[in-house]
Amino acid sequence: MAHASKPLRIALAGLGTVGCGVIRLLDANAAIVRARAGRELQVVAVSARDKGKQRGVDLGRFAWEDDMTAMAARDDVDVVVELVGGSDGPALTLARNTIKAGKGLVTANKAMIAHHGMELARLAEAARVPLKFEAAVAGGIPVVKGLREGTAANAIEHIYGILNGTSNYILSTMEATGADFADTLKEAQAKGYAEADPTFDIEGTDAAHKLAILASIAFGSQVDFAAVECEGIAQVRAADIAQANALGYVIRLIGMADVETGDDGASRLLQRVKPCLVPRDHPLAHVTGATNAVVAEGNYSGRLLFQGPGAGDGPTASAVVADLIDIARGETSAPFSVPVADLVAMPAAGSGNRTGRTYLRFTVTDRPGVLAEITAAMRDAGVSIESMIQQGQKSAGGEVLVAMVAHDGPEKNVSHVLELLGASPSLTADPLVMQIIEG
Amino acid sequence: MAHASKPLRIALAGLGTVGCGVIRLLDANAAIVRARAGRELQVVAVSARDKGKQRGVDLGRFAWEDDMTAMAARDDVDVVVELVGGSDGPALTLARNTIKAGKGLVTANKAMIAHHGMELARLAEAARVPLKFEAAVAGGIPVVKGLREGTAANAIEHIYGILNGTSNYILSTMEATGADFADTLKEAQAKGYAEADPTFDIEGTDAAHKLAILASIAFGSQVDFAAVECEGIAQVRAADIAQANALGYVIRLIGMADVETGDDGASRLLQRVKPCLVPRDHPLAHVTGATNAVVAEGNYSGRLLFQGPGAGDGPTASAVVADLIDIARGETSAPFSVPVADLVAMPAAGSGNRTGRTYLRFTVTDRPGVLAEITAAMRDAGVSIESMIQQGQKSAGGEVLVAMVAHDGPEKNVSHVLELLGASPSLTADPLVMQIIEG
Repeated sequence: MAHASKPLRIALAGLGTVGCGVIRLLDANAAIVRARAGRELQVVAVSARDKGKQRGVDLGRFAWEDDMTAMAARDDVDVVVELVGGSDGPALTLARNTIKAGKGLVTANKAMIAHHGMELARLAEAARVPLKFEAAVAGGIPVVKGLREGTAANAIEHIYGILNGTSNYILSTMEATGADFADTLKEAQAKGYAEADPTFDIEGTDAAHKLAILASIAFGSQVDFAAVECEGIAQVRAADIAQANALGYVIRLIGMADVETGDDGASRLLQRVKPCLVPRDHPLAHVTGATNAVVAEGNYSGRLLFQGPGAGDGPTASAVVADLIDIARGETSAPFSVPVADLVAMPAAGSGNRTGRTYLRFTVTDRPGVLAEITAAMRDAGVSIESMIQQGQKSAGGEVLVAMVAHDGPEKNVSHVLELLGASPSLTADPLVMQIIEG
Repeated sequence: MAHASKPLRIALAGLGTVGCGVIRLLDANAAIVRARAGRELQVVAVSARDKGKQRGVDLGRFAWEDDMTAMAARDDVDVVVELVGGSDGPALTLARNTIKAGKGLVTANKAMIAHHGMELARLAEAARVPLKFEAAVAGGIPVVKGLREGTAANAIEHIYGILNGTSNYILSTMEATGADFADTLKEAQAKGYAEADPTFDIEGTDAAHKLAILASIAFGSQVDFAAVECEGIAQVRAADIAQANALGYVIRLIGMADVETGDDGASRLLQRVKPCLVPRDHPLAHVTGATNAVVAEGNYSGRLLFQGPGAGDGPTASAVVADLIDIARGETSAPFSVPVADLVAMPAAGSGNRTGRTYLRFTVTDRPGVLAEITAAMRDAGVSIESMIQQGQKSAGGEVLVAMVAHDGPEKNVSHVLELLGASPSLTADPLVMQIIEG
């Protein structure tokens, strides 16, 4: 019955590791995929920059398009899979053309969805075609589906997690080895866990792309990547990890989002990516290596955790093909769970109203009066100190680390400390401030 | 547009904590649910054994049916939600009648799906109506959806997890307090974590129901609850937990399933529920309290973890309403991911071919020669000892615990040890054998 259905005909743009992974998956798992999809998933055309490149997969059976944007116009294609990357350029052109041509689009392109997801979803809803992007967030973990559908009955109270495998690999490796950031990054690059240009990963941009997508689905708000407060991990030192450990915490780059209600009754969305202290008995503290993990707290479901490999050709291909199976099965609901017209344009909350315990670390010159200067600034800003650790002299230059934990209090007071100390010649580097996640 | 659609009209059978939770959720989250479902989810009729019972929810707005099986015949109902429980009896009659009347069925009834899931899915496929049971497995964790859809592109290699909250609460409480099983069970009952009759939970039956359902979806096999090898936690002593801890492990009741290929090339399904030793750095070792967690290892996705509250009115209602939203959105794929006709009747593998490291614990009389007797039996069965711990005299009766870890080897050899020692008067209780999960 279902097996007699017509195949779902696919054009695949981008033949890097993920694109080739999709082809390998469709070959290796053909029978399973066909049984679950109810029909064959058939790649009919492919496109990439370099036709001649050796990729280890047989491409001779597919039509080749030199111009990938021409995929959208092919009569023999039902769905285009976009694996080119880049928020704009050919990927975006292909995406628009595909949807306007009445074809479904599956993409792993987090940057494009973070920047243009609203436009593309609006186009897809108007054209009544599927737009799916499970692979754009957290590799093979079905967390887009988990939020769109699995927790659909819930008001989501918080969503947070480890959304960048490279950063998590670096932080958990620093934790295991005691090595500093720069050396660990080099090692990660040598092992293929970090790219030659790791900027997007270590500065939090990649996590912010994913967070903006998840927040939209979770909170029914328009994707607002520009509003994500973003801070990377390059400032985290081995000494910070050691101090956190002594306090019972590990350091993780956490993307978090939630909605606060202002005094005016309006909802505001806080989205931020920052290194944070996570208690050692928290599920996210056990997430090591390139793994991703997302916690969603629903008002009825309670705290749910989705965890798994966050990147790589296999996991990403798994997510791409899951989307294709959904399309083959006729799944048609709104890309962001509710129609774009019903997504709220939610103003950004900013961190100003937040309270919590905070880890502060200063690097200072080793001379009399520096500690008095710091503690006076904290007093003047209304930040009270829960515990303080001064580390012995570390470098020939006489640099000393001072780490402290501030009691539960407004984050803006902590920011004020940094302002008060901003011009101080006693500080040898920018202070590092990390929120402490409780329970 | 979507908002102008007709409501999805629901009849709710069973008004215990979960049934009332569903009503409360639909009230509290009405706007969100309507936006995500694309139309209203409207309860029109309810039924329960006792009409007069105070439940803390307003039932006056719904039609009342004294005979719950009559729900199926109502013209004003699109979907029946079955929350009555029991593998047979009124729940099964209602389920059959509902589907035969061309209505959708949503159920949280793991026993019914484990015993009659194939019949009901066959009926539902023939009637082209949805049959959904996310709430039957692991409360609010969307793991049925995760396997049906999220990992649909994968050949699943293993599935295993913590599927019973009561058992996990007891084991992790024993771990935290050092108390023995009986006292911890009593405390769990007093706190509402264990039922007055805890048999289904502590003997593994509840976990086996869930495992049989997950295994069918994961491996494309017919649900085969009868083939689940099942052993509960009542034999686990505080001393076992202490020994496991000394070895770097915790004890968890693990449901696991995978497929082995026999010498004849045929696939055989192993399903078992057993207390196991889990390494302290394994994600499942950190799952404490009434939490559930499922690991699915796909050949492309890698190891995925789904974790959250495994029971309770809120989480279960979350799963029930997620199914209703799927139905409202028009989701129509096969209940067990592939049509029942394509599910394989897979013979049971049994544990005979399995190998691994094993924990064995004997309780013996404290007299000369007992240890020689045990070690001789192990030698004769070809089981080699990796480490052995003999505990000092424990009881007035002179009972002594002997715990050991056997090297990686065939499980059937370990079973042979138990046969050899079966008639020995030296043993004061049945030995406890637990598999050690690696990595």
